[in-house]
Amino acid sequence: MTSQSDLPRQYSRSHAEKFRHELFEMLRIPSISADPNYAGEIRRMAEWLASHLGGLGLDNAQVMETAGHPVAYAEWLGAGMDKPTVLVYGHYDVMPAAMEDGWVTPPFEPVEKDGKIYARGATDDKGQFLIHIKALESYLKTQGAAPVNVKILLEGEEEISSPNLTPFIKANLNMLKADVCVISDSSMRIIEEPAITHSLRGMCYLEVEVEGPRQDLHSGFWGGATHNPGLALVEIIGKLYNPDHTIAVPGFYDDVVTLTADERAMLEKVALTEEMFKDATGVPALWGDENYSIRERVSARPTLDINGIWGGWSGPGPKTIIPAKASAKLSSRLVGDQDPDKIFELLKKYIESIAPPAVKVKVRLVAKGNPALIPFDLPEMQAASRAYERGWGYVPVFTRGGGSIPVVADIHNLLQIPVVMMGYGLDTDGLHSPNEHYSLEMFQRGIETAIVYLEELARLPR
Amino acid sequence: MTSQSDLPRQYSRSHAEKFRHELFEMLRIPSISADPNYAGEIRRMAEWLASHLGGLGLDNAQVMETAGHPVAYAEWLGAGMDKPTVLVYGHYDVMPAAMEDGWVTPPFEPVEKDGKIYARGATDDKGQFLIHIKALESYLKTQGAAPVNVKILLEGEEEISSPNLTPFIKANLNMLKADVCVISDSSMRIIEEPAITHSLRGMCYLEVEVEGPRQDLHSGFWGGATHNPGLALVEIIGKLYNPDHTIAVPGFYDDVVTLTADERAMLEKVALTEEMFKDATGVPALWGDENYSIRERVSARPTLDINGIWGGWSGPGPKTIIPAKASAKLSSRLVGDQDPDKIFELLKKYIESIAPPAVKVKVRLVAKGNPALIPFDLPEMQAASRAYERGWGYVPVFTRGGGSIPVVADIHNLLQIPVVMMGYGLDTDGLHSPNEHYSLEMFQRGIETAIVYLEELARLPR
Repeated sequence: MTSQSDLPRQYSRSHAEKFRHELFEMLRIPSISADPNYAGEIRRMAEWLASHLGGLGLDNAQVMETAGHPVAYAEWLGAGMDKPTVLVYGHYDVMPAAMEDGWVTPPFEPVEKDGKIYARGATDDKGQFLIHIKALESYLKTQGAAPVNVKILLEGEEEISSPNLTPFIKANLNMLKADVCVISDSSMRIIEEPAITHSLRGMCYLEVEVEGPRQDLHSGFWGGATHNPGLALVEIIGKLYNPDHTIAVPGFYDDVVTLTADERAMLEKVALTEEMFKDATGVPALWGDENYSIRERVSARPTLDINGIWGGWSGPGPKTIIPAKASAKLSSRLVGDQDPDKIFELLKKYIESIAPPAVKVKVRLVAKGNPALIPFDLPEMQAASRAYERGWGYVPVFTRGGGSIPVVADIHNLLQIPVVMMGYGLDTDGLHSPNEHYSLEMFQRGIETAIVYLEELARLPR
Repeated sequence: MTSQSDLPRQYSRSHAEKFRHELFEMLRIPSISADPNYAGEIRRMAEWLASHLGGLGLDNAQVMETAGHPVAYAEWLGAGMDKPTVLVYGHYDVMPAAMEDGWVTPPFEPVEKDGKIYARGATDDKGQFLIHIKALESYLKTQGAAPVNVKILLEGEEEISSPNLTPFIKANLNMLKADVCVISDSSMRIIEEPAITHSLRGMCYLEVEVEGPRQDLHSGFWGGATHNPGLALVEIIGKLYNPDHTIAVPGFYDDVVTLTADERAMLEKVALTEEMFKDATGVPALWGDENYSIRERVSARPTLDINGIWGGWSGPGPKTIIPAKASAKLSSRLVGDQDPDKIFELLKKYIESIAPPAVKVKVRLVAKGNPALIPFDLPEMQAASRAYERGWGYVPVFTRGGGSIPVVADIHNLLQIPVVMMGYGLDTDGLHSPNEHYSLEMFQRGIETAIVYLEELARLPR
């Protein structure tokens, strides 16, 4: 049986060296978003992409301004109005990297070794989003057309929390209108187990500040009659949890979508054993709500963590003060349908209600992001599953990511479309770390899977 | 009625200008013990003192070496074996001081203004210990003899916690042998209420470190199944207290000497009102064990304070980590007969017993000091009271200091003698702060009180 994707897949194999060469070109541009000194490189990267996309025959290929680093955009709408439109999201910016961090080879001079490309951005995210560009190219060069319409949105600020992307999407809703969004910026455990991430946790990050005396006090002169702000903070934080390690804030769990038996069974497939968890983290024992499996706890359930706590003297030796202030940064990872604003109000109200009378307590929102939960039985999700089976060679697992990528919820909510996260990296690729790398085999399999995915999407009933 | 002290008191009045001039000379030497750059000034100060004491006719006047800054020592033993010997302790070192801290006049160029001397060390402790030297001089210059033997021990490391004084005392027990020790290094609330400090709190200072994962973890990938070391620390510290603000560590109060009705009545005389406490500290409300008055809580009862707490991210913005470690510095102010080593063992054992299983906890002793409790009905104490009445003009109060001066307990224990703390400063003198000052009237009254005290001691039955 032949299919529309056979020739494009052959093209992708026969042009593997050209593709790799193009990836190397991209990796040589140090498009570091966090460092203002690299703003010129960021722009050069965006211009390279717009030019490359235009050269492949895409329309409207351009560098578009935002209040920060620009967006590179292009579209191919030749499949016609009766075919679905796919929005491909990726980010061309990278984390900082320098030899002194422990790189074996210069981070912006890509090197191939044992089938892997070593360079900053290889897996996060240049190597991954290029897959979709090369999949589209493979159709256009062999058949002059792809089975679906494709819009490509590449931002330059993902590594600095995408401060200007939501306004950009809001300002360009018509241009970005699509039926499904596909993002390749995640990973799988092993090559034989491709993973579709259908859920990410949201975020409610707050700071609690406890004020006591107007300045640090001599603990000898005032100790015993002054409520120590450090202790008041300890008391407040302690009351946020129940003895069974669940969160004691009234209403906190109200909007948590209950896991179905199917979902629990699916999570069971990617179960984390206690030994694996201990090996990976170094903790002496596990912790958490024992009504849920480890995998459920780290992905499908909301959390409340202390990200930082400070007050008083932390230098060497004794300093006998009652600190004037003590503070903590706390964050909740949220799951569907929890709303970060509502959770912040619940936390703030509860903390204020338990604040001891001999101190003053301030609660401040630091950051927030919506959780994203895409039903995995959506046709676009199932199409992705079939694409992996045909293009990758293995049936994928649907996984819940424990982390937060606020742009996923934003695209889902603003454009009202499902987001399919088809990660083509490996957990061990070392993203954000020295010697980040990317497997050429994953790159090739990714392109073939992306080719098949466009075909599978075209086949969906409309 | 005439007394042996009349002529010396007259001498002290008629030589007030000379005494002030000598104090100014001392204050011009920046004998800062904390800064190694001032080691030469420290030595110059010790040499000035030895020379001055020798010039007054004292014997054995010398600079004596320690492992750190030297001690200045001298003695006058002319009263004979049948008379008591007083050991005067003081410290000639001072806290650092610089104009940029907020001094109005240079800290080592003493200035007299409105009856006060402005200079670093004016009240802490040069102006105070000089009182005893000038009292002895007043006897020697008018009568050729004092009513008791006097030994003068002046150290140069008090402001850096006297690291070498205990070894010095142990090595010179015979030289320092005395019947009573008098220390002037404390203060009174108002000039009409001279204060004899008969109790100081001891100290048990410890550090608690909670270790969880081997490095900071991504709170999204691991949150929900990892016991957050910050939370574990919060749980541990929370369990150290009872809801009524008492300390929950078993055995903690076992050795606390109960306050007698007399003692409570005496503390009532120097009662601190809630308003005074709030004005002085800026706290919105008071806290502590309501079975005791405010004054009792800050001086006669033991405490447990958080001096510092830290772990994870305290910089700006969100950082979504589970910190690998969290730590706290805790200290107990102890009262008689609590033993700092025993208290440390109780705290360590209890903390280890409540340590959650998913973290590792280390408890380390940082510093310790014995409490000092000198019965105020001792003849040497009552003699001091009479000295104030006659020399100062007011009946003094006996107070309990909330702070800790380990040398007091060391002198008391090693030399087996009562320590009488006759402070000649005012609470408002700004010691350790910019624009430290000292009242000339207090200096004069102090010398006359010290003159009378020697006479009162000589009259005690032996």
